Amino acid sequence: MRIAVLNGPNLNLLGTREPELYGRTTLPELEAHLAEVARELGVELECAQVNGEGALVDLVHGLRGRAAGAVINAGAYSHTSLALRDALVGVGLPFVEVHVTNVFAREPERHHSMLAPAAVGVIVGMGTPGYELALRGLVASLYARSLA
Amino acid sequence: MRIAVLNGPNLNLLGTREPELYGRTTLPELEAHLAEVARELGVELECAQVNGEGALVDLVHGLRGRAAGAVINAGAYSHTSLALRDALVGVGLPFVEVHVTNVFAREPERHHSMLAPAAVGVIVGMGTPGYELALRGLVASLYARSLA
Amino acid sequence: MRIAVLNGPNLNLLGTREPELYGRTTLPELEAHLAEVARELGVELECAQVNGEGALVDLVHGLRGRAAGAVINAGAYSHTSLALRDALVGVGLPFVEVHVTNVFAREPERHHSMLAPAAVGVIVGMGTPGYELALRGLVASLYARSLA
Amino acid sequence: MRIAVLNGPNLNLLGTREPELYGRTTLPELEAHLAEVARELGVELECAQVNGEGALVDLVHGLRGRAAGAVINAGAYSHTSLALRDALVGVGLPFVEVHVTNVFAREPERHHSMLAPAAVGVIVGMGTPGYELALRGLVASLYARSLA
Amino acid sequence: MRIAVLNGPNLNLLGTREPELYGRTTLPELEAHLAEVARELGVELECAQVNGEGALVDLVHGLRGRAAGAVINAGAYSHTSLALRDALVGVGLPFVEVHVTNVFAREPERHHSMLAPAAVGVIVGMGTPGYELALRGLVASLYARSLA
Amino acid sequence: MRIAVLNGPNLNLLGTREPELYGRTTLPELEAHLAEVARELGVELECAQVNGEGALVDLVHGLRGRAAGAVINAGAYSHTSLALRDALVGVGLPFVEVHVTNVFAREPERHHSMLAPAAVGVIVGMGTPGYELALRGLVASLYARSLA
Amino acid sequence: MRIAVLNGPNLNLLGTREPELYGRTTLPELEAHLAEVARELGVELECAQVNGEGALVDLVHGLRGRAAGAVINAGAYSHTSLALRDALVGVGLPFVEVHVTNVFAREPERHHSMLAPAAVGVIVGMGTPGYELALRGLVASLYARSLA
Amino acid sequence: MRIAVLNGPNLNLLGTREPELYGRTTLPELEAHLAEVARELGVELECAQVNGEGALVDLVHGLRGRAAGAVINAGAYSHTSLALRDALVGVGLPFVEVHVTNVFAREPERHHSMLAPAAVGVIVGMGTPGYELALRGLVASLYARSLA
Amino acid sequence: MRIAVLNGPNLNLLGTREPELYGRTTLPELEAHLAEVARELGVELECAQVNGEGALVDLVHGLRGRAAGAVINAGAYSHTSLALRDALVGVGLPFVEVHVTNVFAREPERHHSMLAPAAVGVIVGMGTPGYELALRGLVASLYARSLA
Amino acid sequence: MRIAVLNGPNLNLLGTREPELYGRTTLPELEAHLAEVARELGVELECAQVNGEGALVDLVHGLRGRAAGAVINAGAYSHTSLALRDALVGVGLPFVEVHVTNVFAREPERHHSMLAPAAVGVIVGMGTPGYELALRGLVASLYARSLA
Amino acid sequence: MRIAVLNGPNLNLLGTREPELYGRTTLPELEAHLAEVARELGVELECAQVNGEGALVDLVHGLRGRAAGAVINAGAYSHTSLALRDALVGVGLPFVEVHVTNVFAREPERHHSMLAPAAVGVIVGMGTPGYELALRGLVASLYARSLA
Amino acid sequence: MRIAVLNGPNLNLLGTREPELYGRTTLPELEAHLAEVARELGVELECAQVNGEGALVDLVHGLRGRAAGAVINAGAYSHTSLALRDALVGVGLPFVEVHVTNVFAREPERHHSMLAPAAVGVIVGMGTPGYELALRGLVASLYARSLA
Repeated sequence: MRIAVLNGPNLNLLGTREPELYGRTTLPELEAHLAEVARELGVELECAQVNGEGALVDLVHGLRGRAAGAVINAGAYSHTSLALRDALVGVGLPFVEVHVTNVFAREPERHHSMLAPAAVGVIVGMGTPGYELALRGLVASLYARSLA
Repeated sequence: MRIAVLNGPNLNLLGTREPELYGRTTLPELEAHLAEVARELGVELECAQVNGEGALVDLVHGLRGRAAGAVINAGAYSHTSLALRDALVGVGLPFVEVHVTNVFAREPERHHSMLAPAAVGVIVGMGTPGYELALRGLVASLYARSLA
Repeated sequence: MRIAVLNGPNLNLLGTREPELYGRTTLPELEAHLAEVARELGVELECAQVNGEGALVDLVHGLRGRAAGAVINAGAYSHTSLALRDALVGVGLPFVEVHVTNVFAREPERHHSMLAPAAVGVIVGMGTPGYELALRGLVASLYARSLA
Repeated sequence: MRIAVLNGPNLNLLGTREPELYGRTTLPELEAHLAEVARELGVELECAQVNGEGALVDLVHGLRGRAAGAVINAGAYSHTSLALRDALVGVGLPFVEVHVTNVFAREPERHHSMLAPAAVGVIVGMGTPGYELALRGLVASLYARSLA
Repeated sequence: MRIAVLNGPNLNLLGTREPELYGRTTLPELEAHLAEVARELGVELECAQVNGEGALVDLVHGLRGRAAGAVINAGAYSHTSLALRDALVGVGLPFVEVHVTNVFAREPERHHSMLAPAAVGVIVGMGTPGYELALRGLVASLYARSLA
Repeated sequence: MRIAVLNGPNLNLLGTREPELYGRTTLPELEAHLAEVARELGVELECAQVNGEGALVDLVHGLRGRAAGAVINAGAYSHTSLALRDALVGVGLPFVEVHVTNVFAREPERHHSMLAPAAVGVIVGMGTPGYELALRGLVASLYARSLA
Repeated sequence: MRIAVLNGPNLNLLGTREPELYGRTTLPELEAHLAEVARELGVELECAQVNGEGALVDLVHGLRGRAAGAVINAGAYSHTSLALRDALVGVGLPFVEVHVTNVFAREPERHHSMLAPAAVGVIVGMGTPGYELALRGLVASLYARSLA
Repeated sequence: MRIAVLNGPNLNLLGTREPELYGRTTLPELEAHLAEVARELGVELECAQVNGEGALVDLVHGLRGRAAGAVINAGAYSHTSLALRDALVGVGLPFVEVHVTNVFAREPERHHSMLAPAAVGVIVGMGTPGYELALRGLVASLYARSLA
Repeated sequence: MRIAVLNGPNLNLLGTREPELYGRTTLPELEAHLAEVARELGVELECAQVNGEGALVDLVHGLRGRAAGAVINAGAYSHTSLALRDALVGVGLPFVEVHVTNVFAREPERHHSMLAPAAVGVIVGMGTPGYELALRGLVASLYARSLA
Repeated sequence: MRIAVLNGPNLNLLGTREPELYGRTTLPELEAHLAEVARELGVELECAQVNGEGALVDLVHGLRGRAAGAVINAGAYSHTSLALRDALVGVGLPFVEVHVTNVFAREPERHHSMLAPAAVGVIVGMGTPGYELALRGLVASLYARSLA
Repeated sequence: MRIAVLNGPNLNLLGTREPELYGRTTLPELEAHLAEVARELGVELECAQVNGEGALVDLVHGLRGRAAGAVINAGAYSHTSLALRDALVGVGLPFVEVHVTNVFAREPERHHSMLAPAAVGVIVGMGTPGYELALRGLVASLYARSLA
Repeated sequence: MRIAVLNGPNLNLLGTREPELYGRTTLPELEAHLAEVARELGVELECAQVNGEGALVDLVHGLRGRAAGAVINAGAYSHTSLALRDALVGVGLPFVEVHVTNVFAREPERHHSMLAPAAVGVIVGMGTPGYELALRGLVASLYARSLA
């Protein structure tokens, strides 16, 4: 079972961008940690980060038939990208949406997610450890589905 | 007279993505059919599909002075992209907006179009045959203008 | 197969009312042209125009069991008449909504359609030729359904 | 004491239109049943159904000085017709508004009633039996007023 | 020069309907008085009242090429009828909108007029004498235009 | 068949609270009358009134598996309590919502009901007799369902 | 009987400011004409124009006990000044609100009037002759009241 | 370190209420599982469920000085209870908000949370396993804070 | 003359909860001080604090016929509880609403009060001394009424 | 310590304007009473009333460095004047906002205050005695600050 | 060529009012600096500051026929004064709107400008140096126009 | 000190696109002129234009640690791109937002800027010379900061 971890715009800055908000773990460190968790869970991991909305859509299309699910932090596009939701629904990819910060405690622009209605679930505000929670939760959910 | 047929994000999935909504005609099949119609109408056809908003803007710029009009299904960008409308107005390209599904019977996010106010016309819900209607309508409209 | 072409308030003025907006084709000319198209398509055509909302509802009721579909330009009632939508849904009549002008480029009162969510499709801004596109598209859609 | 039962647009389709929503009782059957209830209550009944807003206004005007109250299902006009409310208030006719279906569980267009603020009361979602409840409640209310 | 005085729904009740709001002058009395004013002004007068929206549209169409202007109190349709505005604009009839009561001191449903943006002017709250003011103002305005 | 009659906050004041609005029947008198109606209808009645939102939720939970339906006047909680709707849906209890006064003729805070979308039907403005109408209507509806 | 004619900000520019909108009659010419009309009507006239909101309030206070009514064009303050409405209500001065242009055909900022709910009536779009209509209507209304 | 797990209205129905939405795990089963997780994490667990808003506030007050954090699913009160947020902020209790279902894919009433702006984080849609994720995430966050 | 001082949710935390916002006076200290003021004013005082909405309603009902007025700080329920307003109006209890902090300088959720439209007056932002101001103002107002 | 009492537009009418709303105390009587209270409190009082927004701004500027605080009833400008708030914040003057009537029980235009977010506190609906409450509360607050 | 520099309410406080927001340059210093820039640009400068809305309107009227353009910081009136926009449009004066602070980063009341739609351009957030930019830009724009 | 000048979608069309709106200066001409200004100011200039949102984000990331500030005209993305604002804030780059046209005099879609709240300042409507103003203002602001 392959799981994708997709990061959107500005998440390449993780660990150095506004660390009081986003923490001090860099994206490579985070991806390395998630790879360990994946090994423990017995799933393959595939990580990518891009800054473009179309590039994210392309990434999702490329997972069709290859990945069983995805952990996605689409950054600002979470709040505005219908195209990305269409892509996820279009390829039928179960996903968990993650936000490092508590978006509900920030500006109103971040309170609404375009992706959430199509997600399995949403995890916000748990810092970078939220990705691990999402990965564990997603894998458990996929196993539960496969049993049902 | 050259007419462009531009498709935006996720329309490369046509025919396989949610076929109960979008039908079973693939994009290559659709483009092949439109090419035939174009021949019948005596116009040249140029087709392209991209997933990026900026890439769509680039495509539109590239048509400047080369195409007489365009049939455009900008997918989700139809609902959010002021940049694309600016591009179409900026290069002065007459266009007909097409949507395969009846966007007015779907989620509110799809009820409003950023492109429509600048369009010649809009055709929604007629399935993939809507492209042919758009092409015929656009060509008729361009001839009528050239006579006026 | 019988198809109705229903026109609502003020469309009796077609060709003489604000021709820079609505063109110079009169309603009788338009209906004559559509009759020719219908012959080509092998369907019977039935045309009517009324200015009253209740009268439009009556017309729709009268088509029950007699017509396979309708092309409807309900004029201003498109934007306000829930009664007309109820009538169309109540008698189960597939229809394509037409507007001569690009309503999305006009006053906000014209941007929303009460009928559209119940329509097969919507065609706006293509001038009076939009009726022919609607007729062709509707007939194709009805054949496709009958085959499915 | 004469009571009117007024039905608005599309209610002539009762029993055949979307029966899973509106039930299988036809309007003549319903009116016959209400006539029996009226006899039991010792009131005269007068029933009418029209599809036009102006025609409904005319009906209300015609009841002036002749009817003590009305049970009204104005269908879609309930949600949009200030003219009908003006007519009811203008002739001073106490009325109970009825809807066959639970309008609050349907589209937002049906959640608001133009008539309700001027009504004695409103009964929704009780199916066609709701008319009988309205008739009984109206008559009781009129007797109570006449005693007060 | 012929001027039409058009009254919409419920204005046949003038003088008897809620007289504390609308006064005690009946519509025939009002029309007789306006006829005298018209004679003084040297214009022909034509008066009509209907309760239907479509009937009002029909009346307006019938004035095309026959009347130089109109004084219109469309009652509740003033607030909701885009069809009536379309009719007035469609036949190019200059008109003054009148309301007997001060609609701005009543329910919010009466604060907005669909007709006003297309009117020469609007006169509200002056009671039935407001019609005379409208007639005088309209005729003066038409003379001024004809001189310009 | 057991039917519950649940009253929410302030309805213990019935008959003494603002009698010009709510009438002069007290809650015990009303419940006694409904018990008679229930006997006539051959159903068992169970009445309760509480002022707390959580207490209403508890009452609803306690009816699970014991009651076939409920007549509910949740007072002010009708307009704000998602928890109560969740309780009713959660235990699958069919219910008719009642309001003594015509809430649509009062402050905007009372125009919307949180419960109504999940109700069988809603009866407002018929005074305390509205409870009897609701009881009769609910029982008829339950019998009809059991026959279907 | 003394009537005041009060003009607010920018109306000193009448006749020279945007004459295609406001006409070519200057304020002194208008006031001279109104004085003649006043003589004909047998009332005393008092005219004033100021650009300040507080100054308008002061003017209104100064009319207390001296004037029987006022014709007021408060210019832009009509749309924003609760203080002016309070002043008019506070001194109990009946007034007719006038606007030279059809404010309902202009920007949305001009569609709402703070004064209108407290006015006898409102006259808009009739050009500078609208003042005379307002004066005649106000005087007639005051006589009618004094007779009632 | 003591952690509270607080459940609000209707969560006592877990496992039996709409299982297609909420799953088949009962609240006692869930609490037993969380107790195991707590033991593994080396923290004490304290669980409670109440249906009243005030009762939830009381529970939170009772944790003051005794608990290091809380996992809270306040059910419907999440969307409406400012009082509960005030209680949590008032006693300074770090908490993670949990929802079993994906509230963003349900009715609009569930899209907004009153608690979220004051939460450490929010976990929705992960089913009852979401509580474990919340517990693990909260404990990790508390340890991280105590180290910082 | 008996005056009640009612405090709602979280006000038992006064003096210890966010003291930079709410100050350092505890509720018992405040109540003791108000008792002294009451003695000075010659009125009896009765104080209560509860966290439940229904419990507040119960408290208000219990004051019927016993108390001449109330000083109420309903905390968060001020902003959401129609039930509490209904209770206060239902028992006809004059009251002054108090808020310790300046709610207009805090989050939007606190800007609107459900109680205020039914209050004698509202005092916000004056800290805990605001209760004394409210008590003095209320008593003066009740004496003034009894003299009138 | 000098305290200013500033009154805005129309408050010179106090005692004579709508006395059923504003009471029968005139502004000079009120100011004389407040002067007595000031003497009791050991503070100097300075009173002023103006009808102009700019004049109020000027007054506030003139208090800079001279007054320790202000009691302000800005009348209608409370609801619209950002300039006045800027002035108060600009000169750093602590103030209590007063309204004689309960603005929350009146038209929506009076529900929002531009000044309140910058105020120490707000006192509404307590009649003219509200000024004394404000004065006492403000002085107490200023002493408390000076001690802190 | 004469250019006016107009400052509205509270800008006389520049340099001393909230210097962390508005800087430490006083208005006289700013005006002196702008006079130097004007000399360099070869234009005459005329500076004024007033706190009243009507006074600003008077100032604008006084520039008619004397000034070629204006740099205007209308302070809080920028956000509310339609009267000032009317004055500027009425006398046909080209102007650049200036704000010292970045109004888009402050309260929502400051995000919208009533003047901006009629301005040549708008310069915000550049501190007091923004006036010089505005002056240079305005003069360049006026020269460009005079050449066109 | 290096300053970047970033242009977003469609600004490559400058000089040829809608010249009546955007003027006749091309982007290369503008960049050449800005380079001269930069030389005069003693700063290095780096110019770029892209049509993609992600590409703009990439450009901003690439300036990290290399540029002291930026002049940005993000075209249509100014109004919609939270991702771009996040990028600018994420790399801590001070910037001035520029628009060639007066966006406040155009369609509502252009009235709001996503970037402005994070900008140093905003300059709109000054034509292509606005870039020079922005550059001069930005450099002055950066020097002022470095001195502070």
